[in-house]
Amino acid sequence: MRLLTLRLPSADNTVTTTAVRQDGDTLTEIGGFADVGELLRDSAWEEKAKAASGATHALDGADLAAVVPSPGKIICVGHNYRNHIKEMGREVPEYPTLFAKYAESLIGPNDDLALPQESDTVDWEAELAVVIGKKGRRISEADAAEHIAGYAVLNDISMRDYQFRTIQWLQGKTWEKSTPFGPALVTKDEFSAGPLMTSAVDGEIQQQTPTGDLVFTPEFLVSYISTIITLNPGDVIATGTPGGVGHAQDPKRYLQEGQILVTTIEGLGQLSNRVVKEA
Amino acid sequence: MRLLTLRLPSADNTVTTTAVRQDGDTLTEIGGFADVGELLRDSAWEEKAKAASGATHALDGADLAAVVPSPGKIICVGHNYRNHIKEMGREVPEYPTLFAKYAESLIGPNDDLALPQESDTVDWEAELAVVIGKKGRRISEADAAEHIAGYAVLNDISMRDYQFRTIQWLQGKTWEKSTPFGPALVTKDEFSAGPLMTSAVDGEIQQQTPTGDLVFTPEFLVSYISTIITLNPGDVIATGTPGGVGHAQDPKRYLQEGQILVTTIEGLGQLSNRVVKEA
Repeated sequence: MRLLTLRLPSADNTVTTTAVRQDGDTLTEIGGFADVGELLRDSAWEEKAKAASGATHALDGADLAAVVPSPGKIICVGHNYRNHIKEMGREVPEYPTLFAKYAESLIGPNDDLALPQESDTVDWEAELAVVIGKKGRRISEADAAEHIAGYAVLNDISMRDYQFRTIQWLQGKTWEKSTPFGPALVTKDEFSAGPLMTSAVDGEIQQQTPTGDLVFTPEFLVSYISTIITLNPGDVIATGTPGGVGHAQDPKRYLQEGQILVTTIEGLGQLSNRVVKEA
Repeated sequence: MRLLTLRLPSADNTVTTTAVRQDGDTLTEIGGFADVGELLRDSAWEEKAKAASGATHALDGADLAAVVPSPGKIICVGHNYRNHIKEMGREVPEYPTLFAKYAESLIGPNDDLALPQESDTVDWEAELAVVIGKKGRRISEADAAEHIAGYAVLNDISMRDYQFRTIQWLQGKTWEKSTPFGPALVTKDEFSAGPLMTSAVDGEIQQQTPTGDLVFTPEFLVSYISTIITLNPGDVIATGTPGGVGHAQDPKRYLQEGQILVTTIEGLGQLSNRVVKEA
């Protein structure tokens, strides 16, 4: 099942959204839920989404929001792809590196990506995102799948200058409206880590790695993070990026006004974001 | 004005809370607001809090929740006290070090502080917390005071083993129910950074520094952080800790079962947390 958050045109200037189920080219409203995050907080979310038969919309031309627009937590993982670790000459780590991103940083899968006036070192990081579907603490790795609703694509856009101003990365990782996330939550019965992930700038491939190359799997991460803190429905784990980021290239490359950044995971879908200069 | 979040006894096992105003020994309910965070999201919060004349409760014996129980963002600052920087032989930094804590880590000002079964290196970090009262992005330092609702005491309890497992501190900083926060939000007309902050374990002073010793002031931090991301009402900035943490002592000291940790800022009040072993 594919679940999305659709923006609806409204009479005034406020943005209204609704959770929808995608069947082929058709989006069907799941009544009573403003977005996929709200849907997941209903313990009967899966049955309700399957059974929904509300108003329909065409996928073509749909204005999509971040699939979970306001997660309670976004937990990001660093140093998690073997190819990237090897090319950097690092050891495979014993523990996952965790850092945060705030919900205000999310944008829709086809929204413009604005380069802020304060940074000209804006870089890509294609990532597989895990979305939590059931609350839990100290979840065993064996039970972790029960707590995963499904998967989506996320690009952990990073302002490298701010990221490396200090030893903690947060300030380069959480810029307002910088992180495309979607297009759909694909439920775990239809996807697991493995398929190829690609990021491309103006059609030129930058990163291309199977999501099965993760050092710490989604199930391990759910178990590890939930040892520390309760995971709640709608929480997001961004599982890390493989080699090929612009900052590690020689010469370094960053996003430029007018470029199109496309981030794809086979079976999940694609984010396509035009790079604009912030007004 | 002093604003607090009071837990109310309820018929079933659910915890109900209400925002209250403190006048001397009396707490007066501010009708319609479950906690101080919800109150702050009402743009007329200050007038409504002043005018409130709801049911009253005695402060003595009151069961207090974290003053803002579910902030949208908790942004923590590292390396922000001159005395701590000097004693560590470091240079005064050019930029603030920022990292995150999630809302699930907060506890009330007098709640038990549970040592998790996974860590025996649980340490104190007394901090002055800034609470946002008005939404803003790219707030100038001159305008920052307008966006600050007030101040409270926070102890950024840190699991040092997890903090230093990797180069990012998050996993040692955000353990479930580990961070006392309160007792009250003291509005900015009645407090500004300057007064003495103290942490003590079983009455023995560990940290004692004037909050005026901050390298980056509350106003600077509001301006700096809001350059990156929108600050919203109820968001919290924990402004960093001075020298005297247990991990930097020789020999190192950590919290032990049965101890009482008291964290005080003159004019704001005190957190008093009994250290227990998690069941």
